[in-house]
Amino acid sequence: MLIDVAFTPAETARAPIAIVVDVLRATSTIVQALDAGYRRVFCCAEVEEARALHEDLNRAVLAGERRGQAIPGFDLGNSPREFVRPLGEQVVLTTTNGTRAVVSAAAASDTILIGSLLNLDAVASAAAELAEDVTVICAGVDGVFSFDDTYCAGRIVEALGKGRRTDAAEAAVRVAGSFPTAEDGLRAAQNPRQEGLDEDIAWCAQENVCAVVPRFLGMRGPAAEVGL
Amino acid sequence: MLIDVAFTPAETARAPIAIVVDVLRATSTIVQALDAGYRRVFCCAEVEEARALHEDLNRAVLAGERRGQAIPGFDLGNSPREFVRPLGEQVVLTTTNGTRAVVSAAAASDTILIGSLLNLDAVASAAAELAEDVTVICAGVDGVFSFDDTYCAGRIVEALGKGRRTDAAEAAVRVAGSFPTAEDGLRAAQNPRQEGLDEDIAWCAQENVCAVVPRFLGMRGPAAEVGL
Repeated sequence: MLIDVAFTPAETARAPIAIVVDVLRATSTIVQALDAGYRRVFCCAEVEEARALHEDLNRAVLAGERRGQAIPGFDLGNSPREFVRPLGEQVVLTTTNGTRAVVSAAAASDTILIGSLLNLDAVASAAAELAEDVTVICAGVDGVFSFDDTYCAGRIVEALGKGRRTDAAEAAVRVAGSFPTAEDGLRAAQNPRQEGLDEDIAWCAQENVCAVVPRFLGMRGPAAEVGL
Repeated sequence: MLIDVAFTPAETARAPIAIVVDVLRATSTIVQALDAGYRRVFCCAEVEEARALHEDLNRAVLAGERRGQAIPGFDLGNSPREFVRPLGEQVVLTTTNGTRAVVSAAAASDTILIGSLLNLDAVASAAAELAEDVTVICAGVDGVFSFDDTYCAGRIVEALGKGRRTDAAEAAVRVAGSFPTAEDGLRAAQNPRQEGLDEDIAWCAQENVCAVVPRFLGMRGPAAEVGL
């Protein structure tokens, strides 16, 4: 098993298994939503795609953000803390980086899992059981390297255990190992949109509080359908 | 001063100053050649471009490698140890990753400096004196993240001293800091072409043995002309 890390979606090499990480906050939110009882999260790259799909679905929850801000007319934002109790069965989610990373990963891998610290061991175990090459894809910020996702990717590489690591995978492990705690790793990211996200960062830094492993089930139009 | 690191040439953001790093071996070789007394190194992306330029120049030395192997008809390879005594005034150099990174950097920055461990403090001081934003560009291996260049980039970021670091720049510093010595950092790279490069790796791991700061002077046809 070869274990690789793509620090940005653009670097993603084709691999049988992809684990997508946007730890602040999209993939943490997807994990939280499915753990809380939502049955599906539809990841949309664009706001208008999310609005259109929401109209087609029966009583779905419309959620997301753009550049850290709420979107007019949406039911919820992109904080995992808003997804602790389900308000329906389905969520339509669009975010600046994370949902786009899921949609683009769908083109390059057979199995796409959703990773975060919330489901750290669960997602690593699920990938390791498949015993095929894995690439952990960091959503990054606007296509650029970001500490929070790299930290989470390094922790996932460690949790995957055995396997040959590429230089990038080993670098992610070393970066993660340079922070004393997960919260330090997440807070080191310089994304200015983190302002006001204090409580969300603390939430997303929790490890192994969810056992779910969200996976990509297929495309529904331009949306990536994610469920358990 | 903002300090950034591009782990691969494809990630390179436009910045006033670029420091190109292919520590194993192209940029170490360029530094060594100019330190030894060569007046110019012409960096070519393609073998045929190098051959054509060599024919146009008067008594230039034709040097380079492809995938770690010698190129038929060339005078020298790409080992810095071959450039300790000048065999002429000019070198035409083509390598798998490094010379291509110099050529592509020329399109995105005003000032392009050549970095290595051999001229670590010299190149960092020259960049810092310009007091503008700097991006350290890792040549990588075939467009992919590589430990050796990331190690060297992290050391250059440290040597640059003051300045705000992007997440990528800070990550490079942390990766570099996770190795006890430069040689450990360079040897951690998994490039299989390193086989047989034992002596070159030890050579390229030397710090501050050359005070020269090679810089891009302009294009000569498809070649990037580098001198002091």
